[in-house]
Amino acid sequence: MNIQFGVDYYPEHWPVQRWETDAKLMQAMGVQVVRMAEFSWFKMEPEEGKFNFAWLDQAIELLASYGIKSVLGTPTAAAPAWIIERNPEIQPTDPQGRRRHFGGRHHNCQSNEVYRAHVKRFVNAFAEHFAPNPNVIGWQVGNELGNSHNELCMCESCEKRFREWLEKKYGTIEELNRRWGTDFWSQGYQNFAQIQAPKLTVTGVNPSQMLDWKRFHSDLIVEYHQFQSKILRHYAPDKWITQNMMGFAETVDYFELGKDLEFSSHDQYPSMNMVREKPQYLGSEGAGQLDIIRGTKEQTFWIMEQQTTLNGWYEVSRRPRPGQIHLWAMQSVAHGADTIVFFRWRSCAFGTEQYWEGVIPHSGIPGRVYDEIKGFMHKNGTLMQEIKGLMPQSEAAIVFSYDQEYAIDIQPHHPDMKYVDHLMTYYRALYRQNIPVDLISDQSDFSRYKLLVAPLQYMMDPVLEEKYRTYVKNGGTLVLTMRTGVKDRDNICDSERPLPGGLADVVGLKVYDYDCLRQLQVKVAWDGKEYICDKWCDVITPDTAEAVACYASEYYKGTPAITVNVYGDGKAYYVGTEMTPDLADRFITEVGAELSLGETPDGVEITRRMGADKAYYFVLNHNGKEQMVNIPEGWQSYYEGQTMPMPAYGVYVYTEKVGK
Amino acid sequence: MNIQFGVDYYPEHWPVQRWETDAKLMQAMGVQVVRMAEFSWFKMEPEEGKFNFAWLDQAIELLASYGIKSVLGTPTAAAPAWIIERNPEIQPTDPQGRRRHFGGRHHNCQSNEVYRAHVKRFVNAFAEHFAPNPNVIGWQVGNELGNSHNELCMCESCEKRFREWLEKKYGTIEELNRRWGTDFWSQGYQNFAQIQAPKLTVTGVNPSQMLDWKRFHSDLIVEYHQFQSKILRHYAPDKWITQNMMGFAETVDYFELGKDLEFSSHDQYPSMNMVREKPQYLGSEGAGQLDIIRGTKEQTFWIMEQQTTLNGWYEVSRRPRPGQIHLWAMQSVAHGADTIVFFRWRSCAFGTEQYWEGVIPHSGIPGRVYDEIKGFMHKNGTLMQEIKGLMPQSEAAIVFSYDQEYAIDIQPHHPDMKYVDHLMTYYRALYRQNIPVDLISDQSDFSRYKLLVAPLQYMMDPVLEEKYRTYVKNGGTLVLTMRTGVKDRDNICDSERPLPGGLADVVGLKVYDYDCLRQLQVKVAWDGKEYICDKWCDVITPDTAEAVACYASEYYKGTPAITVNVYGDGKAYYVGTEMTPDLADRFITEVGAELSLGETPDGVEITRRMGADKAYYFVLNHNGKEQMVNIPEGWQSYYEGQTMPMPAYGVYVYTEKVGK
Amino acid sequence: MNIQFGVDYYPEHWPVQRWETDAKLMQAMGVQVVRMAEFSWFKMEPEEGKFNFAWLDQAIELLASYGIKSVLGTPTAAAPAWIIERNPEIQPTDPQGRRRHFGGRHHNCQSNEVYRAHVKRFVNAFAEHFAPNPNVIGWQVGNELGNSHNELCMCESCEKRFREWLEKKYGTIEELNRRWGTDFWSQGYQNFAQIQAPKLTVTGVNPSQMLDWKRFHSDLIVEYHQFQSKILRHYAPDKWITQNMMGFAETVDYFELGKDLEFSSHDQYPSMNMVREKPQYLGSEGAGQLDIIRGTKEQTFWIMEQQTTLNGWYEVSRRPRPGQIHLWAMQSVAHGADTIVFFRWRSCAFGTEQYWEGVIPHSGIPGRVYDEIKGFMHKNGTLMQEIKGLMPQSEAAIVFSYDQEYAIDIQPHHPDMKYVDHLMTYYRALYRQNIPVDLISDQSDFSRYKLLVAPLQYMMDPVLEEKYRTYVKNGGTLVLTMRTGVKDRDNICDSERPLPGGLADVVGLKVYDYDCLRQLQVKVAWDGKEYICDKWCDVITPDTAEAVACYASEYYKGTPAITVNVYGDGKAYYVGTEMTPDLADRFITEVGAELSLGETPDGVEITRRMGADKAYYFVLNHNGKEQMVNIPEGWQSYYEGQTMPMPAYGVYVYTEKVGK
Repeated sequence: MNIQFGVDYYPEHWPVQRWETDAKLMQAMGVQVVRMAEFSWFKMEPEEGKFNFAWLDQAIELLASYGIKSVLGTPTAAAPAWIIERNPEIQPTDPQGRRRHFGGRHHNCQSNEVYRAHVKRFVNAFAEHFAPNPNVIGWQVGNELGNSHNELCMCESCEKRFREWLEKKYGTIEELNRRWGTDFWSQGYQNFAQIQAPKLTVTGVNPSQMLDWKRFHSDLIVEYHQFQSKILRHYAPDKWITQNMMGFAETVDYFELGKDLEFSSHDQYPSMNMVREKPQYLGSEGAGQLDIIRGTKEQTFWIMEQQTTLNGWYEVSRRPRPGQIHLWAMQSVAHGADTIVFFRWRSCAFGTEQYWEGVIPHSGIPGRVYDEIKGFMHKNGTLMQEIKGLMPQSEAAIVFSYDQEYAIDIQPHHPDMKYVDHLMTYYRALYRQNIPVDLISDQSDFSRYKLLVAPLQYMMDPVLEEKYRTYVKNGGTLVLTMRTGVKDRDNICDSERPLPGGLADVVGLKVYDYDCLRQLQVKVAWDGKEYICDKWCDVITPDTAEAVACYASEYYKGTPAITVNVYGDGKAYYVGTEMTPDLADRFITEVGAELSLGETPDGVEITRRMGADKAYYFVLNHNGKEQMVNIPEGWQSYYEGQTMPMPAYGVYVYTEKVGK
Repeated sequence: MNIQFGVDYYPEHWPVQRWETDAKLMQAMGVQVVRMAEFSWFKMEPEEGKFNFAWLDQAIELLASYGIKSVLGTPTAAAPAWIIERNPEIQPTDPQGRRRHFGGRHHNCQSNEVYRAHVKRFVNAFAEHFAPNPNVIGWQVGNELGNSHNELCMCESCEKRFREWLEKKYGTIEELNRRWGTDFWSQGYQNFAQIQAPKLTVTGVNPSQMLDWKRFHSDLIVEYHQFQSKILRHYAPDKWITQNMMGFAETVDYFELGKDLEFSSHDQYPSMNMVREKPQYLGSEGAGQLDIIRGTKEQTFWIMEQQTTLNGWYEVSRRPRPGQIHLWAMQSVAHGADTIVFFRWRSCAFGTEQYWEGVIPHSGIPGRVYDEIKGFMHKNGTLMQEIKGLMPQSEAAIVFSYDQEYAIDIQPHHPDMKYVDHLMTYYRALYRQNIPVDLISDQSDFSRYKLLVAPLQYMMDPVLEEKYRTYVKNGGTLVLTMRTGVKDRDNICDSERPLPGGLADVVGLKVYDYDCLRQLQVKVAWDGKEYICDKWCDVITPDTAEAVACYASEYYKGTPAITVNVYGDGKAYYVGTEMTPDLADRFITEVGAELSLGETPDGVEITRRMGADKAYYFVLNHNGKEQMVNIPEGWQSYYEGQTMPMPAYGVYVYTEKVGK
Repeated sequence: MNIQFGVDYYPEHWPVQRWETDAKLMQAMGVQVVRMAEFSWFKMEPEEGKFNFAWLDQAIELLASYGIKSVLGTPTAAAPAWIIERNPEIQPTDPQGRRRHFGGRHHNCQSNEVYRAHVKRFVNAFAEHFAPNPNVIGWQVGNELGNSHNELCMCESCEKRFREWLEKKYGTIEELNRRWGTDFWSQGYQNFAQIQAPKLTVTGVNPSQMLDWKRFHSDLIVEYHQFQSKILRHYAPDKWITQNMMGFAETVDYFELGKDLEFSSHDQYPSMNMVREKPQYLGSEGAGQLDIIRGTKEQTFWIMEQQTTLNGWYEVSRRPRPGQIHLWAMQSVAHGADTIVFFRWRSCAFGTEQYWEGVIPHSGIPGRVYDEIKGFMHKNGTLMQEIKGLMPQSEAAIVFSYDQEYAIDIQPHHPDMKYVDHLMTYYRALYRQNIPVDLISDQSDFSRYKLLVAPLQYMMDPVLEEKYRTYVKNGGTLVLTMRTGVKDRDNICDSERPLPGGLADVVGLKVYDYDCLRQLQVKVAWDGKEYICDKWCDVITPDTAEAVACYASEYYKGTPAITVNVYGDGKAYYVGTEMTPDLADRFITEVGAELSLGETPDGVEITRRMGADKAYYFVLNHNGKEQMVNIPEGWQSYYEGQTMPMPAYGVYVYTEKVGK
């Protein structure tokens, strides 16, 4: 399969007469693949059991005649009206007990057996029909699984499933009572049947129950994926399955979902970042989203929806500036995308997404967006074939955990604290210094990395504890932070030991006290320079640790805010606060300077994909102005004309000989 | 009928013993009419079918003996508790599925047949009883139809009606599927029975469905008015019917509602504007509300509720400053009110509106409000008789469309964009330069105007397109704006042509690109002076158009922001952005300077009512300070003592000979 | 009973093996009492009718062996899951019609007969079992009655009870119709059965109905308390009953609830004030909460939950600074607490309140919090025995009324106006000048006070009017304010007289006009110095009153804002606005300077408890910095080392000989 470029295509939105024009324009642009069908159930099954795949067959055929392959999505993200009319009970019920109705999308409970029966009937017919078609190369199950379903459905069906999930996990109600801490507020259950979904209460929730609900919900979605993937694999054992993930979306654990995929895909929409990124860290948000996707399976991936232009539903984003679409697509490539599918081919004339615009505008007349993307495809095809499958070979990693995220969501401590935001304080500082970084699961192999940042290891278990210990003992540099070791995996506080629990000797300190910075600013002094702390301060009592920087105000003035401890052959840093950008930059300089690919002006990133004998460097200028960048000696320009200064939104590619 | 002054009176709120005192005080003040009864169903029908009109007869009689006529409202805006007890199903259901209960007002579904039966029984008895009474001169149906019902009721009865309305409109389900674009997100229907009201979804709505819902809802209210008006006209063919509208309220299309009225009325409460009006445009908000009411039937109107003093329900407004009540009432007159009915006679001691205060305070002792309104009535009776029915004879108009407003409501593009706000950017600039302006329907005759501003002609159809074309061709000056011609009347994007669609030749340009100003400020340069754009920038490609002003930043720097195109005998301006006040002022100076009635300081307006041989000019000082105003030679002081400077909140009236 | 110190203890949260360690640590700290059991229904009744009190017996016994007595709460604030499974109908229904579910606490309708039957069964068994135990010294009914139930339950059971309450109050439906003013908006009822709870309406509510709902709701909670207290007293006539109140919480009228208690208790959590208190008034919020509790029964009280350290559920507070826990506990003592029970013994490892931390942290290892509280107990035991029962002997009082608060809640006039905030403008100014002040009911004896501040006497009745009149006539100094006498007790406006109604002659003025300061700032001039008014301005027409300060802007410039009137042997001030801090300070200097216990720097308070022959003065430094305080001659240091400057968060105690 030699496919680098595609578009998301909805032939059903356009007259059949137009299709050939579209196919020609696609071919001219460089398109090799389209994704289709993921929202067209009614079109394919206008009445129960009466299937109409002819139109899609025709589209696949026509596209194939222009050299374009097809990926098909099962259209289960939007059950048609006739199903809802027959079975209104499959519409989800929210935590407030409100029925959510047909009229948008994702209007289905994912656990409902009746809905599952409809899905089963349809997907069997669909898979059976398209499996033999050689122009259909792969599948996508539904669309953006988890999207719109944030803790949404708390219907009886989901409650029933939740109880089954709990019974399987805990075995006995006594065990559940113990591990949920139901002695608090008299919440003990006599049996599993008494357990409800965490629906709207008068006040208060049980954090252990909430955590299990979130895990259950993620597991349900993974199981729902398997429910469909089994059918698809039964009919088409030779075709791959992927899923269009959404970066840091949290509803489903992508590490788990990834296990059921041949490769991950991702929907990349950087325009949402344009308004909030600090100039210092320009480009970092999109980069982070790409890196977490690469981490889901620790391999390269597809972009299944790459933003082309202005988008929105009722309100819209800014229009990408000339060059910015190319830049964004190249950022996806730089971070590990092997294939870029642009969303969407043409702005849809009707429906919710009229302004989630496409390569071709409503008018059907190609313009600057078409030209820019065509330029991108024509220029980069060869390069992308060369680097296919190559990874960045990062020496730094950040540990990412849905479990920790769920727990922090439930109890954010400070009103503004968010798990991903906190993690991004490290990511952005690494990004700014052009240090390639992997976002990995805590199930992953740590030993590959020189630097391992493990933020908010809020819930700890003996196995993970041992992994961190071993990592440091064997020479790694580990960064642990505030709120490490507070809880066990049941979301219950450690009542045996002071913080940070079992890793106290690894970091060489105890935390007997801490402070939440509610309308309060605290400073840190580091070699006489002052920085600002954010949201939280651990008050650290060092054992063997040495202070790296100390608080400069409040009753803990003069005590360490950041420490380092030599342990075994490695060392462990402990950061007792959430770092503001300047402090984070300083800290990363301290712990990772030698891992940098080079120094660049603000908003210019360098990213790497590493081959057996050649490294590829991508220099991306996210600024709206031209920039001077120092290119290391030994780097070869991949393209002609890569002269300094770089243009606004410019992308330069270099190679370097490596290996033997 | 020679009636200029009235009050809204609720005799049922006060002891019968007080009534005569009230009548005397009214007479002394100058009252000629009262509106009564629109919230007293229980008082008139304390048990089903057992009517008690005696108290109202008595009040009408007593008032008549003091020379005061009565207008009666049907009391259907508040069904009594015994109806709700018997038929709780008539209480509305909101989009979230929540029942809205008895305890306030407007607690009825307007489509419900059971409710309609109650209304029918009552209104028949009511009309039959009061029709013969010569002191009852006219009717009002319910109260502020549409108020509190914003998309509210989505009960089964409303859903059923909606389906019938759709079936009537579209004929076949295939036609509806096509024109709603239900191919998007698999929303196709097999039959009308499958269609729901746009109740709470998981995510997303269909813009075409939403638009039809809003239209249906407006039609339902118009039909509900007809349901009652037919009964009233049956019994009293000689009496007029009016409705107290609410300015820019959007729930019901007042152009349509107006067709069932002898004349429009309006409830004018300027105090809400006091805190938000920029000094530059002081008085403009109230003026706009009056002008849209005059536009509903293109004739003069009544104020059925003119604010007297401080008002509010749970929170209250500022108290009008001395002179301001007089000023506001005169502004109503200046903009076309022939009759001013003040709300309300006396502050009610109980119920929700205790602080929606009246001419007489709770204590019953007349004070400064009574005196000021008495002064207004005594001074202006003769004047108002003279100008009865006279219109301003505007040479400028702004096209107002509920349809466009609904569509922009559904998709505001920019989070802060609102249809009326955008339209008001033009209105305010015209107002500031004292250019009389009509707010007219797009069904209206355009040929009367030298200047026609048609903002946000978002949905276009061939007939309207032709009207604009003809208007310009015949010599008119037309102003079109950003987002013209984006959609057809089904709220579906034009996929045949680039923007602005069929009027591209009239404005002499294309719009291939546009930008939404999310946290972004863009400047416009006009003859070297810079102004600020707001919310949106069309990127204009001129054909025959000439640039009037150009963008001064972003990637479209140097391209036109505002253009003019000569077409036929006229010219068409195109404004590609939402103008901030200074820019709008400059623009109106450019396009309409010659239509101004004169230059005045900030916050002083000049308005006109034009007789056959005499023009009446109203000079209104909305400032809390005195002002110097240059009065043109040839204007005669209507009242004595009109010396400069004008006092704070002062009103001067002038006449000028005109005609042969 | 000689008990000064305690902790709230949840033995059921910890292994039995730990209990003795806890008991020893408590004893060492100085603990004499624990409160237990108020959230452990399931633990005590794991199945219906099958009681298990053994674990609690064991805990009581063990604690007793360390000299620690027990107070037991009935655990009715959290019905176990098996009750909810059997009787889901006891879960409350909110005004939007949403069921509120099990999973937190307080998930019960307080009127429900089925729930009452469960409570009755349990409390009988509980009381019967523990009544004979001499180590159980008293009871608490449930927990924080009223908490979480703000107007919450509007289920059918509550509606039924509401109707019964109304029928009892009004006798006939005609009387209710009259006193609710149902002539407004046609809200008349034919019978009580037609009345609903004030559930979600389309728009608007009846203020008289809302007021009755709030009163009914308070009465229901009081009656619910009596329902349990009767059972407890039946079995244990010798034991006292108290309730942990919550300062200014408004759901239940604590004056009424207090009648069913031997003494009041209070839960004091000052950390919430840390971020919002102005430096000028530091410490005032906590002080006010303590003073209202002392007022509930006009006697000294217990702190049943004294904040120990950082707290919160999902988000947490700042950590109290070293010394601040001691300071806060002493502030409770200074304002009338005879016993301080610290919440809680140890941070709970599980459940919602994991971060509502305790004396001992999760780890079980005592730290600085334990040490600081131990220091407090060891130091102050003797002092607290000496002052037990002593009151501050205030010469100033502020009248507090739940009825007025409810009415202002319903109609706050200005969006930011709140009853308690307004009252606190006076309290804070008295506090800042170290004037001891009582917060008393309007049923209380006024004659004891030299200065009586009665803010927002919005609803007036002849009896209360006469009390104020007599108070002034007999020589008192009375302060009345804006919005006095607006309404009768039915929340209906006085329509007989101008404002301020019957007390007009006492204050010597009328209020014919008033202004709400919506986005408007008005100044007051007082002897040439200018101050700022807030939210509201009465326009005062003096009769015999003299101006103290006058407005300096708006149309009422030059008219009095604050007046004083000599009446009988006393004088009555009238304050026509809400005072900002500087104005309030000036005003209190004017009216109460001679009542001050002494002048102190900002944030340092002096409070008194007065014995027969000795006064005890508490000087509390709420600042995070040391302060110089002038101690009057004649005051004796109670403790050694009370040298100036006082340390940050320091507490000094002095005595003075008084009386014969």
